[in-house]
Amino acid sequence: MTSTSNPVLVETWRGVAIESFHRGAVAVVDADGALVASLGDIDRPIFPRSAVKALQALPLVASGAADAFGLGDEALAMACASHGGEPAHTRRVAATLAAVGLDETALECGSHWPSHDATMRAMVREGASINALHNNCSGKHAGFLCLGCVLAEGKDRRSFVRGYVGPEHPAMRVVTAALQATTGFDPANAPRGIDGCSIPTYAIPLRRLALAFARFGSEVGLSPEHRRAARRLRQAVARAPFFVAGSARFDTRVMERLGERVFCKVGAEGVYCAALPERGLGIALKIDDGGYSRAADVAMAALIETGVALDDDESRFIHSLSSTTLSNWNKIAVGRVEAAQALRKLGLA
Amino acid sequence: MTSTSNPVLVETWRGVAIESFHRGAVAVVDADGALVASLGDIDRPIFPRSAVKALQALPLVASGAADAFGLGDEALAMACASHGGEPAHTRRVAATLAAVGLDETALECGSHWPSHDATMRAMVREGASINALHNNCSGKHAGFLCLGCVLAEGKDRRSFVRGYVGPEHPAMRVVTAALQATTGFDPANAPRGIDGCSIPTYAIPLRRLALAFARFGSEVGLSPEHRRAARRLRQAVARAPFFVAGSARFDTRVMERLGERVFCKVGAEGVYCAALPERGLGIALKIDDGGYSRAADVAMAALIETGVALDDDESRFIHSLSSTTLSNWNKIAVGRVEAAQALRKLGLA
Repeated sequence: MTSTSNPVLVETWRGVAIESFHRGAVAVVDADGALVASLGDIDRPIFPRSAVKALQALPLVASGAADAFGLGDEALAMACASHGGEPAHTRRVAATLAAVGLDETALECGSHWPSHDATMRAMVREGASINALHNNCSGKHAGFLCLGCVLAEGKDRRSFVRGYVGPEHPAMRVVTAALQATTGFDPANAPRGIDGCSIPTYAIPLRRLALAFARFGSEVGLSPEHRRAARRLRQAVARAPFFVAGSARFDTRVMERLGERVFCKVGAEGVYCAALPERGLGIALKIDDGGYSRAADVAMAALIETGVALDDDESRFIHSLSSTTLSNWNKIAVGRVEAAQALRKLGLA
Repeated sequence: MTSTSNPVLVETWRGVAIESFHRGAVAVVDADGALVASLGDIDRPIFPRSAVKALQALPLVASGAADAFGLGDEALAMACASHGGEPAHTRRVAATLAAVGLDETALECGSHWPSHDATMRAMVREGASINALHNNCSGKHAGFLCLGCVLAEGKDRRSFVRGYVGPEHPAMRVVTAALQATTGFDPANAPRGIDGCSIPTYAIPLRRLALAFARFGSEVGLSPEHRRAARRLRQAVARAPFFVAGSARFDTRVMERLGERVFCKVGAEGVYCAALPERGLGIALKIDDGGYSRAADVAMAALIETGVALDDDESRFIHSLSSTTLSNWNKIAVGRVEAAQALRKLGLA
């Protein structure tokens, strides 16, 4: 907790009045660690949650597991994904598991209903039940299992990978080491929590997370193995953006449109991280209240709007994400959610 | 927007660290308008949304409509409700409409799927479709229609009530006048927005909303008609608390347990209002970020905990609502949401 408050990053309007507002902090850093711009307290450790899945996926490629098991763009995008549980998502994860001789019973992420509404409804109509494949993190966990299978080195895979979500499991230690290498944080000094999908999550300052994504995007300051892995993961997500999120989702829509010029990834509790490879910049933001992706999405859109060279069509598209309309149950436009001036003036341009 | 920030009212913890936090403001006022306690800016006009449904229901009773159409506790509780769309809710609203010769096609609130998950799933399984009865505000709108039918004074009811959601409709003018009488605010000076259910919503300072609920609970400072109406509505909700919210919902659980000792009502965007009749106090709070009922619920529970004389069992029950456990998809307890010290020390005791 900070003694002074973070600035307002996003405002929601109803009619002519501000109804609610979201405070937060944002760090924009280059690959040498120089702070290019910031708002609020960027040194408070925050749990990055799913926003760092791409960093956690580096060992999947760096270890040779991705090549050994023939993982393509879709599987690698899913290793970085918070997916909506659409049929193509769960099929893809099942295929990845099958490639290493496992199935969904090896996943230790727990189950929840697909966030993709039409998929959930179709399953309810059909009387289908959920399993761990539907968990938004199942692609990341399939990646951890592939990594574990390489680390098993001929031992019985299923028994070797059991308990892979634990911080001391060999696979998770390699994953944590990748976080440490890219962010420069020491996990021994970081508050540790348990994530929604049961893996450890370490609280890391935004400044360090932004640095990691500057490195992820520019490949500067990474080991040769992580450099190759970062490039492969960025390309995979750019080529298969549906698999990193899903229909109508922010990350999918933005990367479908902008390709490798932006790598962005949402996390729970109002976290967003991004790399802008053309600029050599990394971005990390956290909405204090952890709420509504409405605020984190809008804030990230505003940063992309100011930080990426866009043509007119692209600008209109991204602006529609940094200033969104709120409609009520009669489809009457009643308000809007939009980036606050502090964010728009941040000066990445 | 205030230049200084509101204090933190609710903290969410993951492991040993604060992950997210919710700022906001709260006013506790007696029926004479004396400020008993407060945190943050209580003079910023905020949209009270559904938290003032009970005030908007006063004319339903005061006009004689409730008596004329034989509305009982359940129907009156539903006039104050944000309900979950459970079958008993929609049946009750349909019965109220039938009592005045109308049906769901007269409702102008729009439709949405029931927030009560099991009801929604059952409907999807059965291939059922939604109508305006399922809107969480349908009970309030049925009340407006009953009021409109009395105001129609023998004219064709269906054509008289058409457009009742408009600010200038005779029914809505009476509803707005009740808000003005209880809060003392002048709607002509208030920013006006359109609510989720399409009626006007006026931005009113928390100080004024708390006053209105002090009056609603104590009957001090109300007209004789509003006094009788407030008593009738408080009794109705205490006797039929299921109908003001629904299964497992905060307002229902609290009023099932504490009866007429507390009247509390949630609103969208982090608003909560309450009356503590034994103490003659009214409470109004708004979580700045408007998010998560998780924060508004916890804040209101903490205020009830400190403001109401509770026995040990009641204290444990309310404390379980002011300090709640967060579990992940594997049902592992990973954190908690709890009222911040500032709120616990507010000194209503």
